[in-house]
Amino acid sequence: MNNLGDASGAKGCEGGKRGPSDHGLSAVLLWSCPDKKGLVARISQFLYERGGNIIDLDEHVDRSDNTFFLRVEWDMRGFSVSPDKLNDAILPLACEYGARWTIRLNDKKRRLSIFVSKLGHCLQEILWRLELGEFEAEIPVIVSNHADLRPIAERYEIPFHVFPMTKENKEEVEAQQLTLLEREQVDTIVLARYMQILSPAFVKKYPERIVNIHHSFLPAFAGANPYGKAFDRGVKIIGATSHYVTDLLDEGPIIEQDIARVSHRDSLEDLIRKGRDLERLVLARGVQLHLEDRVLVHGRKTVVFG
Amino acid sequence: MNNLGDASGAKGCEGGKRGPSDHGLSAVLLWSCPDKKGLVARISQFLYERGGNIIDLDEHVDRSDNTFFLRVEWDMRGFSVSPDKLNDAILPLACEYGARWTIRLNDKKRRLSIFVSKLGHCLQEILWRLELGEFEAEIPVIVSNHADLRPIAERYEIPFHVFPMTKENKEEVEAQQLTLLEREQVDTIVLARYMQILSPAFVKKYPERIVNIHHSFLPAFAGANPYGKAFDRGVKIIGATSHYVTDLLDEGPIIEQDIARVSHRDSLEDLIRKGRDLERLVLARGVQLHLEDRVLVHGRKTVVFG
Amino acid sequence: MNNLGDASGAKGCEGGKRGPSDHGLSAVLLWSCPDKKGLVARISQFLYERGGNIIDLDEHVDRSDNTFFLRVEWDMRGFSVSPDKLNDAILPLACEYGARWTIRLNDKKRRLSIFVSKLGHCLQEILWRLELGEFEAEIPVIVSNHADLRPIAERYEIPFHVFPMTKENKEEVEAQQLTLLEREQVDTIVLARYMQILSPAFVKKYPERIVNIHHSFLPAFAGANPYGKAFDRGVKIIGATSHYVTDLLDEGPIIEQDIARVSHRDSLEDLIRKGRDLERLVLARGVQLHLEDRVLVHGRKTVVFG
Amino acid sequence: MNNLGDASGAKGCEGGKRGPSDHGLSAVLLWSCPDKKGLVARISQFLYERGGNIIDLDEHVDRSDNTFFLRVEWDMRGFSVSPDKLNDAILPLACEYGARWTIRLNDKKRRLSIFVSKLGHCLQEILWRLELGEFEAEIPVIVSNHADLRPIAERYEIPFHVFPMTKENKEEVEAQQLTLLEREQVDTIVLARYMQILSPAFVKKYPERIVNIHHSFLPAFAGANPYGKAFDRGVKIIGATSHYVTDLLDEGPIIEQDIARVSHRDSLEDLIRKGRDLERLVLARGVQLHLEDRVLVHGRKTVVFG
Repeated sequence: MNNLGDASGAKGCEGGKRGPSDHGLSAVLLWSCPDKKGLVARISQFLYERGGNIIDLDEHVDRSDNTFFLRVEWDMRGFSVSPDKLNDAILPLACEYGARWTIRLNDKKRRLSIFVSKLGHCLQEILWRLELGEFEAEIPVIVSNHADLRPIAERYEIPFHVFPMTKENKEEVEAQQLTLLEREQVDTIVLARYMQILSPAFVKKYPERIVNIHHSFLPAFAGANPYGKAFDRGVKIIGATSHYVTDLLDEGPIIEQDIARVSHRDSLEDLIRKGRDLERLVLARGVQLHLEDRVLVHGRKTVVFG
Repeated sequence: MNNLGDASGAKGCEGGKRGPSDHGLSAVLLWSCPDKKGLVARISQFLYERGGNIIDLDEHVDRSDNTFFLRVEWDMRGFSVSPDKLNDAILPLACEYGARWTIRLNDKKRRLSIFVSKLGHCLQEILWRLELGEFEAEIPVIVSNHADLRPIAERYEIPFHVFPMTKENKEEVEAQQLTLLEREQVDTIVLARYMQILSPAFVKKYPERIVNIHHSFLPAFAGANPYGKAFDRGVKIIGATSHYVTDLLDEGPIIEQDIARVSHRDSLEDLIRKGRDLERLVLARGVQLHLEDRVLVHGRKTVVFG
Repeated sequence: MNNLGDASGAKGCEGGKRGPSDHGLSAVLLWSCPDKKGLVARISQFLYERGGNIIDLDEHVDRSDNTFFLRVEWDMRGFSVSPDKLNDAILPLACEYGARWTIRLNDKKRRLSIFVSKLGHCLQEILWRLELGEFEAEIPVIVSNHADLRPIAERYEIPFHVFPMTKENKEEVEAQQLTLLEREQVDTIVLARYMQILSPAFVKKYPERIVNIHHSFLPAFAGANPYGKAFDRGVKIIGATSHYVTDLLDEGPIIEQDIARVSHRDSLEDLIRKGRDLERLVLARGVQLHLEDRVLVHGRKTVVFG
Repeated sequence: MNNLGDASGAKGCEGGKRGPSDHGLSAVLLWSCPDKKGLVARISQFLYERGGNIIDLDEHVDRSDNTFFLRVEWDMRGFSVSPDKLNDAILPLACEYGARWTIRLNDKKRRLSIFVSKLGHCLQEILWRLELGEFEAEIPVIVSNHADLRPIAERYEIPFHVFPMTKENKEEVEAQQLTLLEREQVDTIVLARYMQILSPAFVKKYPERIVNIHHSFLPAFAGANPYGKAFDRGVKIIGATSHYVTDLLDEGPIIEQDIARVSHRDSLEDLIRKGRDLERLVLARGVQLHLEDRVLVHGRKTVVFG
């Protein structure tokens, strides 16, 4: 059956008009629950009844386990629920469907902390994009286990804390780091080639809020020295992966990946150089998707409403 | 503001369950209209009230002119409106919003006609994919202005009609072609390297239902001999474009594009060979997006819910 | 220092002219040896002294172990060494440098055997490219452990031999296959989704002359069911790899790889479908590079003069 | 014919050994001339006789007009011709073959001048890569027609000259710029989103030594406002192009191109943002290829020995 309807010029019909879009206060709901009939209708109706105009809605059902995922962004102008009451308002609905959810308003910038060691390209990239206004975020503090990158931080006038790390002091240092992050009200941690493995206790404090860049096309070449391994194996393509950190090294849910071609002409140094460009882009994209609340974690996987 | 809610294990809450997905009868609504508050709520509510479970919903608002686009697919099992009454049922809503829309059911395969001239690779590709079950379609007739590709058609036992074309007989031949297409109840025409320009009168009969492949990265190298032009210009990347045919040559709304790297080592013949692979893929993807009702035309542009 | 010289229009200088290139008899030398001063000069001088005009020359030195690789193609018209004496002629030079080498003339087509099981897309792709004239090869026989793909072979009128395979009869069947291949003077074997592991004894008979397609981005997802594993891991990119077969499963030297983007919207079936397109292209490119003598194996790696 | 020779372990044969590669003084010859028999032999023999060990050799023949292109890099240690005599030494050979050539030694860094206007991302990218040691170059001066980017230049302590430009003073300003460039012994000019068109007289002073970035996939969207045009046309892929500047706007020989996918979800601002990443990479690669003497111009095209 194939019917083309057109009521756009029909008599008695009247098209709506809307003023030009401006970036006022808006909210984003990320939601997942077991799939059920009428979910989109219920949630969109919920917003409409309270005066919320939907700016963007994206949904997905994972058929393998019938889980429903939703991202909806709506205009808070004229919305009858005040920002501080949003969670209370959504609770009955969430309870009814057994949902996990987050609501976030764009009323203030998210607070990032960047963790680094000695390589500065990923840090540099993030600071530059911040300066260009690409990220809705601010960076109250950069954390490192080495002092090498302090000059970059100073260039952008961001506090730079060095925590020298040894096998012996790890637990203690992580405690100090957590205190600092809490004091600075850090929301999200970005591991920008930070060469330390975070303890499970640390990771637990920032669930699905630590974004790492791994310099390979995961799951190939997990662990240390991926470029060396890629070079030895003679692959024709290298990659980079941004993912959330979990207790299992390089096993966290993947947010974004990208690749570049290499050939026999490329030395290990060439792989590292080409890889740098990949790492910068893939981490930046991963951070941006996270900051815009476009990522939902589903077990080992992600739903990315890009 | 950042809140993480979790009612997934809450007492008194109960998650819904759904049986494993099967591919029963479903319907797709493609809809565009001036943007207005509550559109998603209204349409999803409309479906829910009639017992329709949404399988997939995607929407988009073009902020440059505040046009709203929607694709929604729902399960027809238990839907209270019978297939032949769907358009009548949606009409009042469409009228209210001044919408253009199509509704299509997956109850029968769409009928394609492939138009070809002398080059067989795009035809070959479409027939393979059909054989593999990638397209929900059937091909009652292949049309050509040359007899060269008849053996391919015979291999797949599809009728092959040759309409020799001259400047003088064009009008008459197109009339014969249209008669044939009507008799065969053809829904969509695929120009698979068909080397004739369709008249505006012909195009008018299949608005947004003629898919062409152009062997360049449009708008670069529109018109004849794009590989020759690309070779002479010394580009480092070649491309292919699938688009809907309109009255303006190679100016129709673009559905899909892809590219391949070339270098000084590539002769014109190499460009043509590499281009063949691009054309096959890009046309196949364009046809598939069209067949799955994922493309909405918006002026010179498309919204592709991929 | 930077100097721009131009003697192209200088008095007393005279530019050479050459007639248009035609595809007459030519030869390709693939050569590897420990690097040494003057190698390119020696080899090109060797050819020049015998009247050979170099059509294409590409060389590479692997700095990690100072191995020199060369591919040179020259015109045999007017070459003073007859084709059957080529190896004898090059021997002293090869001996002097401790080289491994092959020389091949384009005087006759290479003989391929395609090994398949139940999936026909890779077989189909190769036969189609052969038909289009993309491969300088002929296929005297297709080998399978199942009868399913016989119709495709018949479409192209190529003998199709079925060798049903069990754990018990493997050794015996492989012996029969080798007899057949020898009788048909098969030069290269292409495993086009052949779902059997060849024994080391078999592989030994065709060193660096068995090209396989693996349906993942190696070394990720080696072994069985790579799409299932990729789906479970939630990767954002899938891949395919063509490589030479060695005794170690999916560990042979990689010839070519390519990738495609996937998202949470892609089901396992979508991955398989998108993967098919990758497999076809990557195997075809691998076979073509092999047939044109563009691949030199270097331990676990390849040098590909593309 | 197919013969596998192996003299690598033969008795009486002895493989050469070479010490580990170090980056000492080396020279690069770029050469083009009408094709003639024995060219590679002659040139490699020329180097060998003077004690030059070839580090890298790449050649190409354009069959459409039988032009021969060569890039050869050799070790100057033990080379019997002193650097200042290289051109004199090659002259008779070049004259014999009617060649155009350049010879460059890596004894000192090339001197770049970056021209900018108001957008800093390309400048930023080049300065980073310089800092990272990716470019064998130094930047004695940045030239701009606006003062906006001075802070970036100061961050890297590079002199920043502002030349306000009007229709009336163009000729005069260009003369001042040329004086400055000459005084600073600038070898190559990089137009990093410089929004002024250079006069033919200016271009003539730096033939094939001005590298520009154009923010589209040329020849699509030449001229002003390419992102706006791409947005209006509804393309599914955007691109960037680095090329040498000639008298014809956006018509110069292309060095490098790359692309990124876009969709209906991308606003014009998104295109500009995604395009920035492309421009940075494509300009950086173009500059690097130029600095490493890997680009030969051939009419409107380039031969890039990558």
